[in-house]
Amino acid sequence: MTMSNALLQFSYAPVIGGAVSLLVAAVLYLRVVRLPDGNETMNRIAGYIREGSMAFLVREYKVLAVYALVVFGALSAGLGVLAGACFVLGAFLSLLAGFVGMKAATYANVRTARAAMDGSKPNALLTALDGGAVMGLSVAGLALIGMGALYLALVGKPELSTALHSFAVGASSIALFARIGGGIYTKAADVGADIAGKVIENIPEDDPRNPGVIADNVGDNVGDVAGMGADIYESLVAAVVAAMAIALTAPDAAIQTLVPASDSIATARAVAVALPLTLSSLGLAVSLVGIFVARAMKAMDPATVLRASLIGPPLAIVAITAVVLPMFGVSQGVTIALGAGAVGGSAIGLLTEYYTAWGPIRRVAEASKTGAGTNVIQGLAVGMQSVIAAMIVIVIAAYVANYAMGDLGQYGIAMAAVGMLAGTAIVMTVDAYGPISDNAGGIAEMSGLGKAVRDITDELDAVGNTTAAIGKGFAIGSATLTVVALFSAFNLEVNHARIAASMPLLDLSLTNSDILIGILLGSILPYIVGSSTMLAVGSAAGAIVVEIGRQFNEIPGLREGTAEPQPSKIVDIATAAALREMVLPGMTAVLAPVVIGYALGPAALAGTLAGALAVGASLSLFMANAGGAWDNAKKYIEKGGLAGHKKGSDAHKAAVIGDTVGDPFKDTSGPGVAILIKVMSVVSLLIAPLIALR
Amino acid sequence: MTMSNALLQFSYAPVIGGAVSLLVAAVLYLRVVRLPDGNETMNRIAGYIREGSMAFLVREYKVLAVYALVVFGALSAGLGVLAGACFVLGAFLSLLAGFVGMKAATYANVRTARAAMDGSKPNALLTALDGGAVMGLSVAGLALIGMGALYLALVGKPELSTALHSFAVGASSIALFARIGGGIYTKAADVGADIAGKVIENIPEDDPRNPGVIADNVGDNVGDVAGMGADIYESLVAAVVAAMAIALTAPDAAIQTLVPASDSIATARAVAVALPLTLSSLGLAVSLVGIFVARAMKAMDPATVLRASLIGPPLAIVAITAVVLPMFGVSQGVTIALGAGAVGGSAIGLLTEYYTAWGPIRRVAEASKTGAGTNVIQGLAVGMQSVIAAMIVIVIAAYVANYAMGDLGQYGIAMAAVGMLAGTAIVMTVDAYGPISDNAGGIAEMSGLGKAVRDITDELDAVGNTTAAIGKGFAIGSATLTVVALFSAFNLEVNHARIAASMPLLDLSLTNSDILIGILLGSILPYIVGSSTMLAVGSAAGAIVVEIGRQFNEIPGLREGTAEPQPSKIVDIATAAALREMVLPGMTAVLAPVVIGYALGPAALAGTLAGALAVGASLSLFMANAGGAWDNAKKYIEKGGLAGHKKGSDAHKAAVIGDTVGDPFKDTSGPGVAILIKVMSVVSLLIAPLIALR
Repeated sequence: MTMSNALLQFSYAPVIGGAVSLLVAAVLYLRVVRLPDGNETMNRIAGYIREGSMAFLVREYKVLAVYALVVFGALSAGLGVLAGACFVLGAFLSLLAGFVGMKAATYANVRTARAAMDGSKPNALLTALDGGAVMGLSVAGLALIGMGALYLALVGKPELSTALHSFAVGASSIALFARIGGGIYTKAADVGADIAGKVIENIPEDDPRNPGVIADNVGDNVGDVAGMGADIYESLVAAVVAAMAIALTAPDAAIQTLVPASDSIATARAVAVALPLTLSSLGLAVSLVGIFVARAMKAMDPATVLRASLIGPPLAIVAITAVVLPMFGVSQGVTIALGAGAVGGSAIGLLTEYYTAWGPIRRVAEASKTGAGTNVIQGLAVGMQSVIAAMIVIVIAAYVANYAMGDLGQYGIAMAAVGMLAGTAIVMTVDAYGPISDNAGGIAEMSGLGKAVRDITDELDAVGNTTAAIGKGFAIGSATLTVVALFSAFNLEVNHARIAASMPLLDLSLTNSDILIGILLGSILPYIVGSSTMLAVGSAAGAIVVEIGRQFNEIPGLREGTAEPQPSKIVDIATAAALREMVLPGMTAVLAPVVIGYALGPAALAGTLAGALAVGASLSLFMANAGGAWDNAKKYIEKGGLAGHKKGSDAHKAAVIGDTVGDPFKDTSGPGVAILIKVMSVVSLLIAPLIALR
Repeated sequence: MTMSNALLQFSYAPVIGGAVSLLVAAVLYLRVVRLPDGNETMNRIAGYIREGSMAFLVREYKVLAVYALVVFGALSAGLGVLAGACFVLGAFLSLLAGFVGMKAATYANVRTARAAMDGSKPNALLTALDGGAVMGLSVAGLALIGMGALYLALVGKPELSTALHSFAVGASSIALFARIGGGIYTKAADVGADIAGKVIENIPEDDPRNPGVIADNVGDNVGDVAGMGADIYESLVAAVVAAMAIALTAPDAAIQTLVPASDSIATARAVAVALPLTLSSLGLAVSLVGIFVARAMKAMDPATVLRASLIGPPLAIVAITAVVLPMFGVSQGVTIALGAGAVGGSAIGLLTEYYTAWGPIRRVAEASKTGAGTNVIQGLAVGMQSVIAAMIVIVIAAYVANYAMGDLGQYGIAMAAVGMLAGTAIVMTVDAYGPISDNAGGIAEMSGLGKAVRDITDELDAVGNTTAAIGKGFAIGSATLTVVALFSAFNLEVNHARIAASMPLLDLSLTNSDILIGILLGSILPYIVGSSTMLAVGSAAGAIVVEIGRQFNEIPGLREGTAEPQPSKIVDIATAAALREMVLPGMTAVLAPVVIGYALGPAALAGTLAGALAVGASLSLFMANAGGAWDNAKKYIEKGGLAGHKKGSDAHKAAVIGDTVGDPFKDTSGPGVAILIKVMSVVSLLIAPLIALR
């Protein structure tokens, strides 16, 4: 047995690692549930939020079940029942992670508020963190169990690639619908409640009289917990599958360079296929340790704890890899690629934080002095600038990873994405922490708890907003690299099928008019998702404003605070709108590659993917960061950052308008576009063998 | 002599046609100048506007002279003095057209107001049209004279391609600076005057007390006349040069298909090279006739006259081509390609009009009822939707043109762009008509002329706004097709050079990591131009608001209307800001291809162009049309379209905010990004032989 074979001994690592992390998630879940809950008012409000969140999830899952059934049928007919089954598995595990994680979050929110009520910031931090960790560990654990099981069952067999691609399509289409549906819900509720409350009725945020406030808090859960969870689950799956797909189809000569001393190409290829899973398992183990380190640091400054949690694990993984890989004879190029991803992810995260929390947002706040017009212009410009900075980092990471791996450069880019996502479990923990502490603040406000309590929840919430930017950096950076890798995998897969059929290689050259036309066609798709999600939020928010106005006018005593609002009506409007409006963009993403691939052929589809990548990656960064800048510029003014322009001033009102525009930008359209390009890529990869010979 | 040779007899057509059109322009210029001018107040105001416009142009030309000198030196050193000289010629003719056209416009504006004062709508229409025609005929005439002269001097010699590429670089870099500089000027003045006047001082638009109003009117001339003129001059040059470049380097077998019955490939290639110029000359002739038909229709409904002027000539040219080309043995594929361009251009124009004047803007107006936030969200969504519609038309036009020409598909795409621009002279006439009638309205308002006069100028202005949308459709559609064609020309040129040096063809495949990294890199560049121009307008507008506030506070009697404002200070601020802020985006566009080409090689540069094309074409459409939608939604409310929400209502104020955001979107950043991708493409084409062997 050679050294490189030794690495293949770890093939159970994903399943075992995944099982351990699910066990820890279960323990943390039980711990959270058993913590003391709030007083009667708090529990009633938390109950509304939990019910609303679960009701949305159940209704969304029903829609998705129909979708899954249709796709299962189509895939079974076109690619066999195994493909259909793997698709369902990929989808089901995503839904399961979302369900468990959101349930935990809706228990953790009120218990975090209770800890704050008891005056303990460390306990409040710990509760929110544990609630988030249930999501983080479920997401990473289930992703690795799923892919690990498919690997164990099918390694060495030709079905492995179709199985993995189908699994990835399941994961990403659920992510798409969850992100878009959840995003429409959360921002329709947020914008609707804000306009009706702050602008029309002139009452503060989270005021209990506002019937939209419950829906707003539900939105935090369905969008930022369940939607984000599906998104990150998908990111991990897509990055690993992209690397495995390239490993399965790359030319022999290139594969050999991965394990230079290996005795056979078959062994080298087996290592190449196993490596992304093995390294992700290592990442999960490091993240598990990281979560407990973070828990132990609960008494420290929350911002420090969370930032270290995000940046530490990926770097630790790279350090371990640098030591371990040579022992198995694997090229250090992999370590460099992983490192490029890990460092690049942190750099994008910090840049995102810069553009959405530092100098640039002060300029947005300054621009608010001359009105909403200049505020919006400045915010749009900041969003565009952030594209430049983040994309340069992505280009550098891709460049380094590509050249570090030589002939296997495309695999290197995929491994950079794997490196960026190595800390998925802890990144998701911190991401879910955010909406939990946001919810805790909402519950404290609505229950009329004192300023001391709000101070604690406000601090935890503010930290969550900053770390959310870093988490977003990892997400968008890895998405772009993953799409580049998936794109390479698609091209390899098409030519693999053509070689098998003794056909000439596909002309993928930029001189091919089909490719050029495809590039233009691909540039359209992000705008379909962008416009439809913006409009969905706009129209649903409008309907919510009308309903809130109706309640204030028709419910006697509501304005005076002597009568209860009817939050369930708002929840219904938001739910119906989200489920209705997610269909068009969702189906566009899933069907566009199929239609283009069959109608115009694989070259036009390759061009389409390239065009969608260029436009989608930049557009999603632009929208996400412009939105973040407006949000924080408003908060900056609210905290008194703009001398002479307090909360309620004209400058503040201008900043609120910018924030309203930014809401769907950053939490609906931006993330929706980012997932669009991933869904298109995995669907294309899956159907590649079917259209390759056209 | 074969039939196909007969077509080559028309080689003097561009120069002769150009000379005739300059002669007509001179006659119209003299006619306009000799028309009766206004009363003393009107002439004083018009004098301010003319002085301000000319002062800006002179200062801008000084900056551009330095730029031209540097580039002349660089090109002479790298590619020979001929390249440097052709660059200067391309740039100089652009400046000349801008100078003459703007001078005519600044005479025509006050004379249009005078005709309205005399109560004659037909005469007012005719005056504005004649003023615009000076620009239209100069632009098209000088472009054809320049290219035609180079063709005559160098046809059959190897220097022709470098000469043409250098000429195109001259044309497009002037267009870039003029568009960006003029765009910053006009929108800084517009936004600054609006905020200071309408929002802060609460006085009507074009109020003579507002010191920013003169600068606003100057801006219409430097941005929408001179800037637009340079832009359209460049479009025509780039489309013709792209087609000629492909004709010079396409493989023999493909070229043969253009003139199937030709006795030699050399003859077929000569026809392919001459055809774009010959057909553009035909287009100029048809446009000249069209201008006189439009003049004869002066008593008809202005909207009908102008719309027919835009759509008629391109279709007439296609009809003539369909009859004539077979007589010369040229493939009817060319007619189909031209037709795809002509019909596509009209379709994009009408779609643009739909998105910026019909149903969509009513929805933007409706959204204003719930505030500026929803207004902005809706406008952004409309802009995104317009990308989908317009880009589908562009894709169809490219697809049809490509397939109609078979192996010469890339030439077909270039000819589609030529077809879209066949009516350049009349399109530019109508485009320049817009700001002239806008200026006429401003002069009428500032001079206190009565409502009857304003009614005439308002109607002419409103028609101009609609037809501007159609003109913009031709411009953006042709820009996208031209860039696709230039991109093909670049790839052909690189491989042409490599074949000559006995090197293997460049790997332009999408599986090449350099291409993928280039695509990501290219996606950044439109955001550099977008963010820097948005910020430039924002900050310059802010400075203007401050200065206007100072004048109102420090000049006794200004607010009461008993003292004169100091408009020249505002003109100075806008001029200085425009000239300062156009440097970064302008240099980025010119230098990026050079730096990337030399540092990362031709494959990465090809990827960069592809990425910039996908992002730039869609982003510029998005910004241009979102801006148009906001502008017209505001006007729709002002005209009473929104029952219960008049001018001055909250909904109207919200719409004014959207319009403010839209100003730099539609007139600075959007056009700037569109030219960026053309400049990058022609610069790349020019340096292709220098970097091809890397």
